[in-house]
Amino acid sequence: MVNRGLRQLLMVTSWPRDMPGLGDSANRVARLIGELSGGALTVEVAAAGERAPALGVFDAVSLGRADMYHAADYYWTGKSPAYAFFTAVPFGFSAQEQMAWIDHGGGQALWNELSAQFDIVPFQAANTGVQMGGWFKREIRSLDDMRGLKMRIPGLGGDVIRALGGTSQLVPGGEIFSALQSGAIDAAEWVGPWNDFQLGFYRVAPYYYGPGFHEPGGSLACGVNRQVFESLSTEHKAIVRAACEATHHWSLGAFHWHSAEHLRILTEEHNTRLARFPDDVIRAAGAASRDILADIGRRDNLSRRIYDSWIAARRALPAWSDAAEGGYYTMRTTAG
Amino acid sequence: MVNRGLRQLLMVTSWPRDMPGLGDSANRVARLIGELSGGALTVEVAAAGERAPALGVFDAVSLGRADMYHAADYYWTGKSPAYAFFTAVPFGFSAQEQMAWIDHGGGQALWNELSAQFDIVPFQAANTGVQMGGWFKREIRSLDDMRGLKMRIPGLGGDVIRALGGTSQLVPGGEIFSALQSGAIDAAEWVGPWNDFQLGFYRVAPYYYGPGFHEPGGSLACGVNRQVFESLSTEHKAIVRAACEATHHWSLGAFHWHSAEHLRILTEEHNTRLARFPDDVIRAAGAASRDILADIGRRDNLSRRIYDSWIAARRALPAWSDAAEGGYYTMRTTAG
Repeated sequence: MVNRGLRQLLMVTSWPRDMPGLGDSANRVARLIGELSGGALTVEVAAAGERAPALGVFDAVSLGRADMYHAADYYWTGKSPAYAFFTAVPFGFSAQEQMAWIDHGGGQALWNELSAQFDIVPFQAANTGVQMGGWFKREIRSLDDMRGLKMRIPGLGGDVIRALGGTSQLVPGGEIFSALQSGAIDAAEWVGPWNDFQLGFYRVAPYYYGPGFHEPGGSLACGVNRQVFESLSTEHKAIVRAACEATHHWSLGAFHWHSAEHLRILTEEHNTRLARFPDDVIRAAGAASRDILADIGRRDNLSRRIYDSWIAARRALPAWSDAAEGGYYTMRTTAG
Repeated sequence: MVNRGLRQLLMVTSWPRDMPGLGDSANRVARLIGELSGGALTVEVAAAGERAPALGVFDAVSLGRADMYHAADYYWTGKSPAYAFFTAVPFGFSAQEQMAWIDHGGGQALWNELSAQFDIVPFQAANTGVQMGGWFKREIRSLDDMRGLKMRIPGLGGDVIRALGGTSQLVPGGEIFSALQSGAIDAAEWVGPWNDFQLGFYRVAPYYYGPGFHEPGGSLACGVNRQVFESLSTEHKAIVRAACEATHHWSLGAFHWHSAEHLRILTEEHNTRLARFPDDVIRAAGAASRDILADIGRRDNLSRRIYDSWIAARRALPAWSDAAEGGYYTMRTTAG
């Protein structure tokens, strides 16, 4: 008989309470753990700032002040630059490609090794799907229009914008609208139609560029304190992992459904103009991205091994993606 | 305290034992149920023919001779034509779109209602992703080349081929190779590069057409006998559902990884020629598909409500799919 003593864990998250898609997914992981364990293992969810700051959840879990986090692992590139590969990188993997690399192409073992340095056990625990390129106050007609552009875009996407001659700024989600409205910034990316609609960017920036090249699939993580994880029974370890996998499945459908719904609302009811980046912007961004990612691979031994594994998958997966989902969507349009 | 008595369930499947992707997924659902329940609920997996014929698993579960099945629900269109919508239909949903409709667009409630008529509770339990169009002994240059074509393609895909002037035949997986080799058939579809490679079709048919229009995402189901499901504790009900969702996540990555790997082997090591259907074939197939699906919606009241829900999602989802994954794969190719 397994020990059925009751136990409660604390999950700290980087999301505002009940944030669509992201907070929802954290809540679902927590709820599932309780349900699957028949209430023997329950999880209390803390929104950003309640028990740890949004970007402080990693340290809280690493140091044992909380049991697990739900966040985007590329927030931790200050700990190791290779963390970017486990959320999203420019011109990197779609959600299905990321699932392929992590679960079947060696990604999980490298992710485990990286996070073990910080006493954390990581799991895929949600995915936003392809993110949009952002809201622009004026049209981008060619690469020249990127020069001097002031854009809210964090992380490696920001590095690419700087390589194209723009400037990247970190503006918290709640302040993007007023920064766009005042002209303090010319453009801003956030997530996609579902989350972007809620923040009202369509009221101050008419051009919605997409898809984005910077986050072709935002893979979100649940990181569990290693000592806490190791103290769990075999059954409860399996429950934590399955709750994350089941929520990953659920979230990808949720983002697809609600993104379609809100894209329609934006274009049909709010005159949002969908636009695609010009080819010269795409090619310049592609070249800059390759250099930026290769540079990560030169930082330290583990980053090198992660980069090598990622680049092998990056060479292998697109031929199938293009022949399969990519080719299918094109063919379906042809069919009318 | 929940009742922790030991219980074993029998899962009958439509797959040969350990068949890559499909049998693997059935095995994983079964294993997870055991792990998540700490061994209180275990599942014995029977391959096709062991405890029920491949296409007899539905009746076995419906009549209570087995507890659950793992199969493709479009095998049961003889019970209700609307079952097709819960696996794949021509020019229908990709895996992500199917996940969106089932989990977030009302699909699951309709699927539950359909299967309740047969005392079955259905869950999404794996997905093949986009399937290929098939292996052809000669090139298809225009719609004219479809006339008289003898193709192994079951279900609604076969109805489309017949509407284009060809003939569709049912040939079991194990007999496709020799039927192609002997010239008894001119073409055959099976699944995709991973499963097709194993059966060796590349040795007798040089043209590999893709993507297919007939199954843009093969959603596989786990159906549980309703009395059995209702007899489970709340905890064990949640475990069955989560095991299916977690396996759906896992399988989609598996098919993506191994399809890419085998597409490379086929094209680089076996001279397989990848080809796309000509536009006139695609447009004619699209028109035929619309008629065939609309006809299902006229069969009975529940089929009508399923068709209406599906067609609403079919109108809503592609705009996002094209802007997101579709647009991204094109953009990534442009970036080089």
